[in-house]
Amino acid sequence: MKIPIEISARHIHLSKEDFEKLFGKTEKLNVLKNLSQPGEFASDKIVELIGEDKKIENVRVLGPLRKNSQAEISMTDAYFLKLNPFPKIKVSGDLADTTNISVKNKNISVKIPCIIAKRHLHCSEEEAKKLKLKNNQEVSISVDGIRKLTFHEIAVRVSDKFKLALHLDTDEGNAAGISGKTFGELVK
Amino acid sequence: MKIPIEISARHIHLSKEDFEKLFGKTEKLNVLKNLSQPGEFASDKIVELIGEDKKIENVRVLGPLRKNSQAEISMTDAYFLKLNPFPKIKVSGDLADTTNISVKNKNISVKIPCIIAKRHLHCSEEEAKKLKLKNNQEVSISVDGIRKLTFHEIAVRVSDKFKLALHLDTDEGNAAGISGKTFGELVK
Repeated sequence: MKIPIEISARHIHLSKEDFEKLFGKTEKLNVLKNLSQPGEFASDKIVELIGEDKKIENVRVLGPLRKNSQAEISMTDAYFLKLNPFPKIKVSGDLADTTNISVKNKNISVKIPCIIAKRHLHCSEEEAKKLKLKNNQEVSISVDGIRKLTFHEIAVRVSDKFKLALHLDTDEGNAAGISGKTFGELVK
Repeated sequence: MKIPIEISARHIHLSKEDFEKLFGKTEKLNVLKNLSQPGEFASDKIVELIGEDKKIENVRVLGPLRKNSQAEISMTDAYFLKLNPFPKIKVSGDLADTTNISVKNKNISVKIPCIIAKRHLHCSEEEAKKLKLKNNQEVSISVDGIRKLTFHEIAVRVSDKFKLALHLDTDEGNAAGISGKTFGELVK
């Protein structure tokens, strides 16, 4: 079975509290575009990520709001912003012991935990059964092309809220030479 | 045998003609720091790479001067600079059919061919014999760690001017979570 690959650009998730601090209590997080994972969307809101002497503009806020705020950036971004301590490579939601980053809208800023996302495979219960995969298992997926790569230690995440897709960040996508719609092959 | 891995940051090589255009006829390309490959060095000269509406500063000129000028950047850089046409993934020196980029020093600029370097393994004749590798062969090398990867289709380049090292760009290094001195394992 071919595994669809999706590249996640840098983005942030916000808690209700942080959202209201940045955008005010009357503002709403509106859907700009639905993402592949059911219920997830790119919102109409953007922020700036503030580093030591540089910033990254136009960073998308993804929705819906979550229990905890979290920024997900690439290692390239972390070097560019000179983040110190350097953010950890973590699965989404594991925010213990990572670094914080300043997130800014207009003249208001909040500090939120920042991670470099560990590569992971989203998978529904049915897809997991077909592929004989279990939640939290680690698999390898190979991507063909001029920059052929095999990604190992991919965390499998099974839920009926999910749909089959390998999520990589932009460094990983670029290392594999991926541009546009691409599929990988499960190696195990 | 462990394979040393080296990450090449964006850089340029210049011909004598382009060097003199950018820096003048009396200026010299001086050694700032020797690189691992014998005779190759980071020079004391830097330039700017000019994109559509953004630029990248402090890009190192490597020495010695070469027959042909060439910029080597990452896919991340190419997206950042919005290069159009997009540079090709090529082995160093293969400059047919790729894009040109504006390189600037103070108020002088020249256009030079720009590639995204294809990953490659430098290797002396003796090391090649030990590892049973041949020039132009393609091999796979695996890198351990939290972002474990296997790089395939690595071009082997054998010469007595070379010393054993897998050369990756910053996207590839970041995708493998490499920071500092790292070794890979030849998988073949």
